[in-house]
Amino acid sequence: MFITMALSSSAVIHNHMNINMKRFNMVRVHQELTLEIPKSKRPNRATHLAESICNVLHRSPSRSIDLLRYHEEKLSTPTMSPREDISQKWRQIHGCSNWENILDPLHPCLRREILKYGEFAQATYDAFDYDSLSQYCGSCRYNRNKLFQKLGLSRNGYAVTKYIYAMSHIDLPRWLERSLVADTWSRDSNWIGYVAVSDEQETRRIGRRDIAVAWRGTVAPCEWYEDFQRKLDPIGKKGAKVEHGFLSIYTSKSDTTRYNKSSASDQVMKEITKLVKFYEQKGEEVSVTITGHSLGGALALLNAYETAYKVPNNVPISVISFGAPRVGNITFKQELEEMGVKTLRVVVKQDWVHRMPGLVFNEAFKVFDEITSLEWVYTHVGAELKLDVGTSPYLKGGGMNLSGFHSLETYLHLVDGYLSSETPFRNEAKRDVALVNKYCDMLVDELRIPQCWYQLANKGLVCNDHGRWVKPKRDPDDIPSHHDDPLVPDETQTYMMTLVSS
Amino acid sequence: MFITMALSSSAVIHNHMNINMKRFNMVRVHQELTLEIPKSKRPNRATHLAESICNVLHRSPSRSIDLLRYHEEKLSTPTMSPREDISQKWRQIHGCSNWENILDPLHPCLRREILKYGEFAQATYDAFDYDSLSQYCGSCRYNRNKLFQKLGLSRNGYAVTKYIYAMSHIDLPRWLERSLVADTWSRDSNWIGYVAVSDEQETRRIGRRDIAVAWRGTVAPCEWYEDFQRKLDPIGKKGAKVEHGFLSIYTSKSDTTRYNKSSASDQVMKEITKLVKFYEQKGEEVSVTITGHSLGGALALLNAYETAYKVPNNVPISVISFGAPRVGNITFKQELEEMGVKTLRVVVKQDWVHRMPGLVFNEAFKVFDEITSLEWVYTHVGAELKLDVGTSPYLKGGGMNLSGFHSLETYLHLVDGYLSSETPFRNEAKRDVALVNKYCDMLVDELRIPQCWYQLANKGLVCNDHGRWVKPKRDPDDIPSHHDDPLVPDETQTYMMTLVSS
Repeated sequence: MFITMALSSSAVIHNHMNINMKRFNMVRVHQELTLEIPKSKRPNRATHLAESICNVLHRSPSRSIDLLRYHEEKLSTPTMSPREDISQKWRQIHGCSNWENILDPLHPCLRREILKYGEFAQATYDAFDYDSLSQYCGSCRYNRNKLFQKLGLSRNGYAVTKYIYAMSHIDLPRWLERSLVADTWSRDSNWIGYVAVSDEQETRRIGRRDIAVAWRGTVAPCEWYEDFQRKLDPIGKKGAKVEHGFLSIYTSKSDTTRYNKSSASDQVMKEITKLVKFYEQKGEEVSVTITGHSLGGALALLNAYETAYKVPNNVPISVISFGAPRVGNITFKQELEEMGVKTLRVVVKQDWVHRMPGLVFNEAFKVFDEITSLEWVYTHVGAELKLDVGTSPYLKGGGMNLSGFHSLETYLHLVDGYLSSETPFRNEAKRDVALVNKYCDMLVDELRIPQCWYQLANKGLVCNDHGRWVKPKRDPDDIPSHHDDPLVPDETQTYMMTLVSS
Repeated sequence: MFITMALSSSAVIHNHMNINMKRFNMVRVHQELTLEIPKSKRPNRATHLAESICNVLHRSPSRSIDLLRYHEEKLSTPTMSPREDISQKWRQIHGCSNWENILDPLHPCLRREILKYGEFAQATYDAFDYDSLSQYCGSCRYNRNKLFQKLGLSRNGYAVTKYIYAMSHIDLPRWLERSLVADTWSRDSNWIGYVAVSDEQETRRIGRRDIAVAWRGTVAPCEWYEDFQRKLDPIGKKGAKVEHGFLSIYTSKSDTTRYNKSSASDQVMKEITKLVKFYEQKGEEVSVTITGHSLGGALALLNAYETAYKVPNNVPISVISFGAPRVGNITFKQELEEMGVKTLRVVVKQDWVHRMPGLVFNEAFKVFDEITSLEWVYTHVGAELKLDVGTSPYLKGGGMNLSGFHSLETYLHLVDGYLSSETPFRNEAKRDVALVNKYCDMLVDELRIPQCWYQLANKGLVCNDHGRWVKPKRDPDDIPSHHDDPLVPDETQTYMMTLVSS
């Protein structure tokens, strides 16, 4: 009944919603206040309240109608939640105590930061040019100054300073996106991520200058993990070994390419080192936070390992990864821990990728030390935040929707709805549910959100003045350039100042 | 080499193209002048000239480069060719002599008119709401006053006066597009076509007031034609029989529906009769031209049959159908001919739909009169213009691309390129080649036109002011209405005057 009314009369919706919004806002305020400094794992009163509301949802004989009503009411509330000052507690949020006591229940400020970095990783998908008929297939569709603005992320408080490109000397199945066009921007390289730095306002809010690195992933194909024992390559000097495909992407370079005369590793380390030096010289506190989904999460860990080697000890380094596979053996894990790299792995119970490689032999074989210490046993690193598709009333839980369970947007939705391992989906979750279906089919049908909806009008063709449908030339601003930003040291400073104050 | 230059320097393209355009324009002018009044089937000098240019294309060792060059040059030429005055020869173009001597070679003015009506039929696909998550699935996305403008057809010189809706009492496989939403505009009916009338300027150009009817098709499923002998239903009073599925769509009605309290037949006949009467009372010469593709072509024939019964004899009635199946038996064909209905069937050799139903027993069994005169033998009607996918250098000819061979845009492309059965593809064809791939994958890869590119940005979702992706409500103007235009006879006149003079 409500639905029919809602669709026929916006005035009715408005009144109805005002009432509901008031009720919800009261719940929200209460909830966030009491959750602000979680003192125990026992669900508190606000959680109980949220739980009871959710239970109404789950138990209602007309659950789908209720769900739809909740969803329609939310359509007129802003997705952005207020961002609190975390300058006094950023070290906890950044993992200095391995996120102990703030994961379950999840501290609201940590949830907000996980989502921030998750959206940095999501941007590497949303801006990627997958179009094999485009001359620029495999690049980013926008230049770094436009990236966040084009993706609706301009309020995130960061500025992109550098794009990273990668190639691989190993023929990795289904990795490289390549243009079918003869005169392509690059035959060998793909855009693989970027470096960004917090601006003045965000730096004040988060209590330090944060250098964020986001790595693009792909669906990590199982073929990569076959014969996993033979495919570990050494890294560092202490016997650490890592999956050879990830390492190849991270370190491959070739003089015959345009974009990988230096490797992704060289490019990102040059930028991180430059930025750390620049801000430390200004006397600022600096952190490095590296993020990525799937393969991107693996690259993030390699990047963190290298950063820990090459950047002074006092710079805190964290990794926040989503659905990332295992990367290396137990020595790799131990080295990371010794060097103080903090890793938060966000995983979805139903997703398979984070169980790879090492599906059989892995760190879980705690009773057999003689096995898990073997150099070919893949081992996860750091703390885990485990999400469950079944907790969200918006998601289809059944079946083997592998791409849906692995999709980063599914992860971000579940993070947004996560209160604790014992409570149902957070009623006050503000993130737009529709985003989940961008590249998959995970939302319940009642929501009427089309599957895989993230697409260009007419696949990018536009009708020109002569009435002909053509692929428009890319804005010259957005054509990738393989030249480094031509900066001499003195200019660098001015350039960075402009960047971070803009 | 040229390609690289073209993409790197628009000035080079421009110069290059000016030279080529002059050459092409000379060819075009010459060709159209000499083809103006075709005197015989022997290819004339202009055709030879065009042929030799095309042969360069076909024989070149780097055919794909040449093709791409031609294509890129055309991207800056208008798609609209000049429309000549046909007021003195419209009866021939309209089929009064069964298109004898103007089909092979094809008279340029007839080609232009075939394309005009073909685009009327194409509009029924392009404006149709296929989205099962839309409340208005199965309707036209725009109201009738906006239809041509929204589809870039506003210069066609016609105004839409009426939308037609259809239902079927027979459960026809894969026919009805139906919304999954509860509160849909209609559970039973689909938008099936429209009536349009020529405006003053077009009426002067074509020598009479033309009432055009366009019928929407669908891929006609083979299931409809199983047991074809048993599925012929009688029509008229002289033993004519027609396929029962087509007739059901054309004639079904139900008081319990919103849009089919009267049948498609009732709706369209009421409108045609009204318009004929109105313009005849004004002393104007009037014609009726009915078009449709696939199932739409079948409905066009049923509509022409009924119009011939109900409209005064002196009104010329033509059908121009594209890829239409057979509709009825030999008596149906004979009756149409006796009543003076002229039918031009455009067919593509590689398409299968026009061979249905009656794949085995049909009018081709001329030697067995005792078979073809049987009441269950399906029989094609009228003149045929036969096109061949193999003649176009732009199309992939091989394989069994059934949807591509049947696609109306493939038909229109081949009509645009058709000179005669003995000459290669018309070099001066101006229609945008990219249109072919709207709903299929028929263009050679070198053209870099994506397959099935006709799609909405983000499947129609837009980001609202709150940052949420929503399906916007349809413009109230474009919501279908099941009420007849509330016209009393006196108002009708004013209304029509406004319409045709606008």
